[in-house]
Amino acid sequence: MREEIYQIGANAKEASIQLATVATDKKNAALALIANLIEDKADLIKTENAKDLAAGKGKGLTSALMDRLTLNDQRIKGMADGLRELVALTDPTGEVISMHRRPNGLEIGKMRVPLGVVGIIYEARPNVTVDAAGLCLKSGNAVILRGGSEAIFSNLCLAGLLQEGLLASGLPQNAIQVISTTDREAVQIMLKMDNYIDIIVPRGGHGLIRTVVENSTIPVVKHDKGVCHTYVHADAEMKMALEIAFNAKVQRPGVCNAMETLLVNSKIAPEFLPQIAKRYAESGVELRGCSKTCALINDAKAATEDDWYEEYLELVLAIRVVDSLDEAIAHIAKYGSHHSDAIITSDYNASRRFLHEVDSAAVYVNASTRFTDGAEFGLGAEIGISTQKLHARGPMGLEDLTSAKFIIMGNGQIRE
Amino acid sequence: MREEIYQIGANAKEASIQLATVATDKKNAALALIANLIEDKADLIKTENAKDLAAGKGKGLTSALMDRLTLNDQRIKGMADGLRELVALTDPTGEVISMHRRPNGLEIGKMRVPLGVVGIIYEARPNVTVDAAGLCLKSGNAVILRGGSEAIFSNLCLAGLLQEGLLASGLPQNAIQVISTTDREAVQIMLKMDNYIDIIVPRGGHGLIRTVVENSTIPVVKHDKGVCHTYVHADAEMKMALEIAFNAKVQRPGVCNAMETLLVNSKIAPEFLPQIAKRYAESGVELRGCSKTCALINDAKAATEDDWYEEYLELVLAIRVVDSLDEAIAHIAKYGSHHSDAIITSDYNASRRFLHEVDSAAVYVNASTRFTDGAEFGLGAEIGISTQKLHARGPMGLEDLTSAKFIIMGNGQIRE
Repeated sequence: MREEIYQIGANAKEASIQLATVATDKKNAALALIANLIEDKADLIKTENAKDLAAGKGKGLTSALMDRLTLNDQRIKGMADGLRELVALTDPTGEVISMHRRPNGLEIGKMRVPLGVVGIIYEARPNVTVDAAGLCLKSGNAVILRGGSEAIFSNLCLAGLLQEGLLASGLPQNAIQVISTTDREAVQIMLKMDNYIDIIVPRGGHGLIRTVVENSTIPVVKHDKGVCHTYVHADAEMKMALEIAFNAKVQRPGVCNAMETLLVNSKIAPEFLPQIAKRYAESGVELRGCSKTCALINDAKAATEDDWYEEYLELVLAIRVVDSLDEAIAHIAKYGSHHSDAIITSDYNASRRFLHEVDSAAVYVNASTRFTDGAEFGLGAEIGISTQKLHARGPMGLEDLTSAKFIIMGNGQIRE
Repeated sequence: MREEIYQIGANAKEASIQLATVATDKKNAALALIANLIEDKADLIKTENAKDLAAGKGKGLTSALMDRLTLNDQRIKGMADGLRELVALTDPTGEVISMHRRPNGLEIGKMRVPLGVVGIIYEARPNVTVDAAGLCLKSGNAVILRGGSEAIFSNLCLAGLLQEGLLASGLPQNAIQVISTTDREAVQIMLKMDNYIDIIVPRGGHGLIRTVVENSTIPVVKHDKGVCHTYVHADAEMKMALEIAFNAKVQRPGVCNAMETLLVNSKIAPEFLPQIAKRYAESGVELRGCSKTCALINDAKAATEDDWYEEYLELVLAIRVVDSLDEAIAHIAKYGSHHSDAIITSDYNASRRFLHEVDSAAVYVNASTRFTDGAEFGLGAEIGISTQKLHARGPMGLEDLTSAKFIIMGNGQIRE
């Protein structure tokens, strides 16, 4: 198996060198062709997907996992449309983002180039196979995909179509490869191939992320948990605060940019908390509060220290009353996960301090944290949301699949 | 010891939060104050350095290592002046590098912020202690320094002065910490503290880099070897090609941006190689060539396959005759280390292809690779030269010690 995985790595590296200088038109034509192919072969995809679903049923997968695993006509069209949307996005490769002339006449610039080979390790969501492959292709990167074993038939079927599309478009078919073994050892081998793979993107739960971070010798961009906060400052507009605090928790609680902890200034808490509690109660949100919160909301349970660290991903919310902006910022620094945090305020200084002092990938004033998303930020599709600080923070679009090399143009300069 | 190292990590994290929002003026005042302090305490520094030198002599360190370890008045002044030069550089933190308005009225921008805590692992060069601490301070990062055990007295003395300067400037003294134990286990502990440290920068030989890459759970920006090429194309201006090929090898052979392999187009080789060989011979450069090279240069030894991968760092040069630009680019892709590579040409298409197709941190047309350096590129001082693709490529200045967070300003936007 080791040899097989290494061969995939070597193939990817070779394909990445070819792909790096392919013109945008040609990559776009391939994306459009693959999109059509996926729609044309919907029946084949569903047949292979049915094998995964049958096996999953046998293994007793939860209904949530079975749902993520399922490919129906609508989702197949969704994958194809996702590829078509990539065609319209700007290709970041080759862009010269700066250029200046040195006193000795050298002209020094920076040019965006693909990272090279991207390794993606994800769970049993076959649509990720197509989404991630499309993003890598558009940005000139070769990709090695390792999806969850429960989706293996679906993934291999999709990989076959992706490679068929590459070949038909005159592009190297090894630019997109799926690891065909479901052996867990394959991931360990992959994580050590730093001579072939330039970046590893794990997409999945905390356990997967830790495994990757602890074992990879390849640089990792991780998408870890989102413990997102909304802080309602003393002078917040009441209606705005209610709408945003409700939206951030309830609109889609199972995603990483949903609010998990609500912080409320003690000056506004007596007026604000009973009103928002009423709206939460109507939507079945369980509330866990500090002692001051519990004094203002009858239904709230007492929060424990653990609650402040928790990413519930469901209709549960921790609430804490704080006495100042400083206290709110300190709470977010201590318990947060540096994902998305918001302040609701009408105060100029408070908004400015929050934007500067909160060290999160996305820092908001007067808006719902639910907007942390590549499409909502205008980046197009995203390969993930980075919660680390190196290379990229927040939603990672096509640009984040490139880095910038220096280009230097001279007319005979030598170093004295 | 584990507890002690973890405490250093926790202290650094806390200091980094305070330091992140300190005004540039205050950081500049601290840099200037520390510079003066280092010059004032030159005698103390030399006394402590003498202990390291005595121990090094006892251990039989090579003269090169003893030289790197030595702090004399000139080098002490050099460290102080380095800090003063940082005062004049632009502070990258807080810079808003983009801002756009979305259709729903959200204004979304990106703001540069410090990475947080930087861990630097380096060999027995005490000046790195001051240089790296200064760069981190200017860019608002806390730093944990782990230098080579041979420099421990010098490093602890310098750390004391750095912390004294921080305190006197009203800045958190834990913003700069040196690990005081010389136990190797300390590095292993440090490399796993991903909850406290945001980036690890190893500065040293290939062995150190591999140890760090293989053991770190923290993102690493590595400065690995430089196997740099100069390719003399068929139509190169003869005088320019001779000057650049000579400069790139001979001006300072022991550094990473010096040329290790010279590639020469077969059309120009019969005229070019004998001339450059004469100049190299005058400077005592040993030549190892392919068979075509050996046919043109009497003194050249036959190169082995290993020579093409070699970073000599001395007056030895590998030379290969190639038949085309394609062959040159393929050689660089196969044997190079993606550091710095140059073409000498008068041809528009060849220059353009080389700039686009060579995947190195610094790609040159008609200039010596010796310019790959923060100061020469106009970045000011550098924390290292990255040979990886994530986050930064090539010389890393102050900007590369930051990353950009999203800032989002709304007036009540919620997600539908």
